[in-house]
Amino acid sequence: MKTGRLEAFSDGVLAIIITIMVLEMKVPEGPEFETLLPVLPVFLTYLGSFVYIGIYWNNHHHLMQAVSKVNGNVLWANLHLLFWLSLFPFVTGWMGENHFEKNPVALYGIVLMMAAIAYRILVWKVMKYEGSNSKLKKAFGKDLKGLISILFYALGVIISFWIPIISLMLYIVVAIIWIVPDKRIEKIISEEL
Amino acid sequence: MKTGRLEAFSDGVLAIIITIMVLEMKVPEGPEFETLLPVLPVFLTYLGSFVYIGIYWNNHHHLMQAVSKVNGNVLWANLHLLFWLSLFPFVTGWMGENHFEKNPVALYGIVLMMAAIAYRILVWKVMKYEGSNSKLKKAFGKDLKGLISILFYALGVIISFWIPIISLMLYIVVAIIWIVPDKRIEKIISEEL
Amino acid sequence: MKTGRLEAFSDGVLAIIITIMVLEMKVPEGPEFETLLPVLPVFLTYLGSFVYIGIYWNNHHHLMQAVSKVNGNVLWANLHLLFWLSLFPFVTGWMGENHFEKNPVALYGIVLMMAAIAYRILVWKVMKYEGSNSKLKKAFGKDLKGLISILFYALGVIISFWIPIISLMLYIVVAIIWIVPDKRIEKIISEEL
Amino acid sequence: MKTGRLEAFSDGVLAIIITIMVLEMKVPEGPEFETLLPVLPVFLTYLGSFVYIGIYWNNHHHLMQAVSKVNGNVLWANLHLLFWLSLFPFVTGWMGENHFEKNPVALYGIVLMMAAIAYRILVWKVMKYEGSNSKLKKAFGKDLKGLISILFYALGVIISFWIPIISLMLYIVVAIIWIVPDKRIEKIISEEL
Repeated sequence: MKTGRLEAFSDGVLAIIITIMVLEMKVPEGPEFETLLPVLPVFLTYLGSFVYIGIYWNNHHHLMQAVSKVNGNVLWANLHLLFWLSLFPFVTGWMGENHFEKNPVALYGIVLMMAAIAYRILVWKVMKYEGSNSKLKKAFGKDLKGLISILFYALGVIISFWIPIISLMLYIVVAIIWIVPDKRIEKIISEEL
Repeated sequence: MKTGRLEAFSDGVLAIIITIMVLEMKVPEGPEFETLLPVLPVFLTYLGSFVYIGIYWNNHHHLMQAVSKVNGNVLWANLHLLFWLSLFPFVTGWMGENHFEKNPVALYGIVLMMAAIAYRILVWKVMKYEGSNSKLKKAFGKDLKGLISILFYALGVIISFWIPIISLMLYIVVAIIWIVPDKRIEKIISEEL
Repeated sequence: MKTGRLEAFSDGVLAIIITIMVLEMKVPEGPEFETLLPVLPVFLTYLGSFVYIGIYWNNHHHLMQAVSKVNGNVLWANLHLLFWLSLFPFVTGWMGENHFEKNPVALYGIVLMMAAIAYRILVWKVMKYEGSNSKLKKAFGKDLKGLISILFYALGVIISFWIPIISLMLYIVVAIIWIVPDKRIEKIISEEL
Repeated sequence: MKTGRLEAFSDGVLAIIITIMVLEMKVPEGPEFETLLPVLPVFLTYLGSFVYIGIYWNNHHHLMQAVSKVNGNVLWANLHLLFWLSLFPFVTGWMGENHFEKNPVALYGIVLMMAAIAYRILVWKVMKYEGSNSKLKKAFGKDLKGLISILFYALGVIISFWIPIISLMLYIVVAIIWIVPDKRIEKIISEEL
């Protein structure tokens, strides 16, 4: 089975998630700039979630480029990832509308963590199907970045019950780690080509 | 006529259905975890509907892989299937917000059943156009799984007027049957390649 | 310029239009079947609009199959068509929620008519760019069906101010005319291949 | 890395933005034409935003046609552009619902300007990666149109605090400049082919 349609479907879902999150930013009633103030936390959360979905799209793009074929397990692992990502608009709205209070920050972190775990599972399923000598295995052999992300999210969830601002910082740190392009895979791919 | 654009359009519609269902999960007002409680049944229904749309996408993917060309009848049979699937967000919302009461459970089952019938019609139209010796016919010759699904949905709709919980269980059983990857088609395709 | 991305973008827009129309069907509050009654006219309008968008997607699909390249004029003619189709969710909602009263029926007809005219313009722009000997010109030489549709819509709009039910019938007649697959183009294409 | 998936994802996001903007046009309660009057400014704003997104899609289409490969920087520059465009539904709603008052007109102009700047950055990143002798560099060497657009938007934002109607005119002038097809790139591409 080729990867084309899996990529097209994932692109579609990610494009919709990234776009409908903006609907959580409710258009204010009056024309004054002050009416925008309550929307600001939602905007900031939207910005963060946009970056996160962008990171997943980028990584997904890289991953699928290193893959030549997929099976049923990979399809379901991919849907599992998309499920957690599809909860972003909900948790984005809840955190933004409640001005980063502890419970919404915790839930946001849980969804981030589950998405990161789902991505790891997807990578494992892909590697298992591609075989041990695949270029993918070389690229993802020890995925320190992925494990650190999951750890940071878990820490963020726990800490959020006391000091949510630190949780937010941890989430931002993980985003920054990932915005740096994934040299590992780019390198392996260009070596093999 | 090639299958490419039919697949792209179906992917688009399925990607949107699977994603806008999450909009039925209304963001609660307060920051307490208790405010999430009323959202829980909607979340569970969303989870179920996500799995169902995932199953249809997987099966659609398998089906179209065994097909080389389509005609007007297949296009309309496909749109007919997408119509019933497009009602998922509505029945998901109704069932979730009414905590699995009998009428919403019945309507949910009716839409599930109509979608299953629409899928059977699509398979028939595709087989008719592909001809009797196609690999598709071998794969779908006697579609026991499809017929059992329709039967279970019909049972679920009838039972829902007395004990909706049993209906829900029947719906879940059908989902589990389908999550198992469709070995039939995968086998035939790999034999022929 | 190739047609690939024009088709992909149009597929995306049509897929979204056909799917977000369902959001106009507001989930009712209670679990009784009677609560669904007010939703029924919206459902019927949704069904009609779904069929219309399906027809446009089919025709668009046929048209683009007979085309090998596009220019800026074709891109804008295509966007013009998508603009009128994008108003379907709005007029569908207004007509459905007002139970087929005369003004909403008139506005629905106006949008149908403008979309039909926009489709004609698209066909003209495509034919102009493809040249006079193209197979497209043979297929669309005298587009009786297209002209009759525009005439029927115009009649429907005028009549709606007195007897909206006749307008609705006229709209349905046009839909039935178009559901019949476009033998003209299919014939010409298969002749040439 | 090929451009295919970047185009598919951008198409998806643009298709969704262009379509969900129509959701800002709230379906009025009554069946009288007068109930449509408050929707009129939102409709006009929607029309304008539709044209703008159409222009960006056209230009993006042209740009990517002149490109053979992309890297991580280009992916992020593209996401940056999509971010500003994704704010169109919000600023469209705010400006339309407040009947073109000064603050919403200013914010609309700011988002227009940021999107124009993001597009310039995308072009730069693409040119940098493609190298100095690329046909793209010839086509985009001195992008007068792009710079004039940014200048006009900036002027529009400043003037909006006194006479918003002039700002709207400036925005419309820029749109008209861009609707004229980009002969530069079309010319260079056809020369090289």
